[in-house]
Amino acid sequence: MAHQEKATSGVEWRITLEDGSSKSLVPDAGPVSRIWAGVGGLIAGLVLKVREFLRRAWDIGVDDPRKVIHCLKVGMALTAVSLFYFMRPLYKGLGGNAMWAIMTVVVVLENTVGATIYKCSNRVLATTLAGFLAFGVHWVASQSGQEFEPLITGASVFILASATTFSRFIPSVKALFDYGALIFILTFSLVTVSGYRVDKLFDMACQRISTILIGTCLCLLVTLFICPIWAGEELHILISRNMDKLANSLDGCVDEHFDYNDEHKDSDKQPDKKLLGYKCVLSSKATEESMAEFARWEPAHGRFNFKHPWQQYLKIGASMRSCACCVAALNSCIDSENQAPEFIKKHLSNICLKVSSSSSSVLKEVAKTIKTMKRSSSVEFLVEEMSSAVQDLQNEIKSLPELLSPPEVLHTESKETDDTTSTIHLLDVIPVVTLASLMIEISSRVQAIVETVEELAELAEFKGEVQEKEKQNQPNINRIVASQLNDDQQTVKALERV
Amino acid sequence: MAHQEKATSGVEWRITLEDGSSKSLVPDAGPVSRIWAGVGGLIAGLVLKVREFLRRAWDIGVDDPRKVIHCLKVGMALTAVSLFYFMRPLYKGLGGNAMWAIMTVVVVLENTVGATIYKCSNRVLATTLAGFLAFGVHWVASQSGQEFEPLITGASVFILASATTFSRFIPSVKALFDYGALIFILTFSLVTVSGYRVDKLFDMACQRISTILIGTCLCLLVTLFICPIWAGEELHILISRNMDKLANSLDGCVDEHFDYNDEHKDSDKQPDKKLLGYKCVLSSKATEESMAEFARWEPAHGRFNFKHPWQQYLKIGASMRSCACCVAALNSCIDSENQAPEFIKKHLSNICLKVSSSSSSVLKEVAKTIKTMKRSSSVEFLVEEMSSAVQDLQNEIKSLPELLSPPEVLHTESKETDDTTSTIHLLDVIPVVTLASLMIEISSRVQAIVETVEELAELAEFKGEVQEKEKQNQPNINRIVASQLNDDQQTVKALERV
Repeated sequence: MAHQEKATSGVEWRITLEDGSSKSLVPDAGPVSRIWAGVGGLIAGLVLKVREFLRRAWDIGVDDPRKVIHCLKVGMALTAVSLFYFMRPLYKGLGGNAMWAIMTVVVVLENTVGATIYKCSNRVLATTLAGFLAFGVHWVASQSGQEFEPLITGASVFILASATTFSRFIPSVKALFDYGALIFILTFSLVTVSGYRVDKLFDMACQRISTILIGTCLCLLVTLFICPIWAGEELHILISRNMDKLANSLDGCVDEHFDYNDEHKDSDKQPDKKLLGYKCVLSSKATEESMAEFARWEPAHGRFNFKHPWQQYLKIGASMRSCACCVAALNSCIDSENQAPEFIKKHLSNICLKVSSSSSSVLKEVAKTIKTMKRSSSVEFLVEEMSSAVQDLQNEIKSLPELLSPPEVLHTESKETDDTTSTIHLLDVIPVVTLASLMIEISSRVQAIVETVEELAELAEFKGEVQEKEKQNQPNINRIVASQLNDDQQTVKALERV
Repeated sequence: MAHQEKATSGVEWRITLEDGSSKSLVPDAGPVSRIWAGVGGLIAGLVLKVREFLRRAWDIGVDDPRKVIHCLKVGMALTAVSLFYFMRPLYKGLGGNAMWAIMTVVVVLENTVGATIYKCSNRVLATTLAGFLAFGVHWVASQSGQEFEPLITGASVFILASATTFSRFIPSVKALFDYGALIFILTFSLVTVSGYRVDKLFDMACQRISTILIGTCLCLLVTLFICPIWAGEELHILISRNMDKLANSLDGCVDEHFDYNDEHKDSDKQPDKKLLGYKCVLSSKATEESMAEFARWEPAHGRFNFKHPWQQYLKIGASMRSCACCVAALNSCIDSENQAPEFIKKHLSNICLKVSSSSSSVLKEVAKTIKTMKRSSSVEFLVEEMSSAVQDLQNEIKSLPELLSPPEVLHTESKETDDTTSTIHLLDVIPVVTLASLMIEISSRVQAIVETVEELAELAEFKGEVQEKEKQNQPNINRIVASQLNDDQQTVKALERV
């Protein structure tokens, strides 16, 4: 706007239109001011975009400060390696190969401990193996004369690279050695080919492996001892949090449907919150799998042993997804246009709310079991409560027809009016019946979730809450017994002394 | 067993047990034969495992021969780069930096064209940018004196590495430049730090960039011109194939439920096939997303333009997943123990089969639309057929009560018997009603899929089948008209000549 004001400071042209209104004609801005305006607009747009970008980045940092910590860790590790580089004696010992330490740190240092260990072990193993193999191939090639040397080298690179690349498509290899396969090809090609030129191949290989070991050790130190983020713990938290979300979304979904007190205006806010729940569960499969993959590389940490059954978490995740699928169906069934008449809804609202709240409290209790890693004594009771609520719901549905067909209508005398009178509005009941049977299905899937968690508790040897309390009491009893014994012994001694 | 026979060739010891039976005592095998047996068992086990592994690898290769082709491509590209290395003039020109070409090929050559282009462009861009930046930092550091040099270098590495690592957490950066960020950190650190030692920094940087360019170009040539695998095409095929699978699984699911002719023995085979369908759809989200991500890097290929709306495929995928969720619920509802009485099932079987077959034929038609990239003229008709089938199903359900409560039972004279007579077995109907309403829900989701595909057809400017036919006719007409004109002209010319 600024350039327009400047431009109109001279003569003003006006045109009077047919309807009598007049319009001032603004002369075209000169090319210079137009360029200025364009540049200004561009800069303003850029500034806005950058601000927006920074704001989003800030949000990400605030949302999960550990991400920021990870970034600082990467910066720190790299600076440490660089300083290493600046120390002349070390640099002289390692030669130009010191860059491999930097490369290792950049490529290997990952967000979680498990991923870092996976990459470190893969890198060291693959480099060593490929180094030795390349050394052998190089020896054979050098023995076979000048003409055959490139041939043997080329053929070995072709065959090994193709075979190793193929192995990356095999699921079991991919899960454990995907990165290793890449490094294997890389090292093998580099050493085989460069071996043709560099005479001191063995020295080079040793230097390279030692620099990689330096980088690896630094990464392991940084990842293990500075605010470690454990893939296993993340998986553990993710599963229990998702279960809470599923419970809340089930609750929210049914509550909203049967809630007559709240105004409809408020329901606009609800969907996001309740939808997020089961959608999170449905979409977290890939995350769970990669976490479980990395978790198995981790040593014992916190409450988790080395052989913690991480694969069982995937089973729990799968059973949760199957339940979330049903919640999704329930949700769309509730959102659909066909709604049951209010009186039927009212009739069933209490029992439906009971089923949903009992199902979700089972889920919450199970989530607590996972969170605390202690067997809950009340799960069995809650599951029974859920089953009885489901039974009640089924009974309630059995009694629905009485509601639908009031006796005075049913008991008509003439056979002719048959068609009109006996037509129970079954179509009206469909939404409620569907809702009910989906809720019954959900409760059976909740049962399946409980079973998978039960398995986890057995595999990971969770302690029972009661057991725990008994144990806490046990030492007291022992102490009492011991002190009694002590007293007795002292009495005996005192008697002896007498 | 072999060693036992040898061992028992001497004296035989027998023991007679209390029940009169006698047992020969086999002397313990010697340590040597035991070791032999152990080694034999180990080798046999290993051979078995290796055979199993190779068999699985073979299956993978047979299942998708393009994977094998990709492996051969990697081998070829690497051998080509190695041969390059063997050419003395080139090697002398590039110095030890020739290894960067090998490294580039190993790291950059991916299965699909899109992924390769993504990595190539990221690598070249990031290397160039980081190289120039590092050069600048190095210059500033070298101007600031001996003491400050390591300080400035270290600080710049720390800050840039941390910031770049953080940027990888931002979704928009991650989608486009995740690999580039890694390479940026790597190159910046290497150049900044090594700059302290190597005097000919500029030469080195140029050599490195040129070798990376050589590797990149080779990868692009190999990936583009030798059996290219396009991420976009893969996505396209995946989506249309998944839609077919969904249709088949919907069909199979309902067919099996209402199939009275087949024996139950046959149904053991069915579940796998029909289950696979919707489960494939539910679990292919991650694949779809990565494909769509890579597809946007690809140039126009086959029937796809450069700006093909790949994002729309993700929307179609999401709508398919929401439909698959319902099919999953339907499936579990069918598998549940509560089954409707046979006569109700029989009554509804025809109309239910009609709804499912019309829904699945809509899906199949839409899949064909995607596959052929031609607007189908029959989709609208099929959708209408589906809607009318749904309407019929609703009517049929309306008429259910008549079936349930035969008039002679309903029309009792006394009010006392009310409770027993008016109790329609609604509980029996629940499974069927649930099934029906899930099928209605599924048909509405099929409708949503049709809409997303419709959007795709508009965005990608699919041609109509009819339009296509008209166009095919058009040239003929033109040719006829042209030949007629030709004839006319020739007649005119002939007349002129006369």
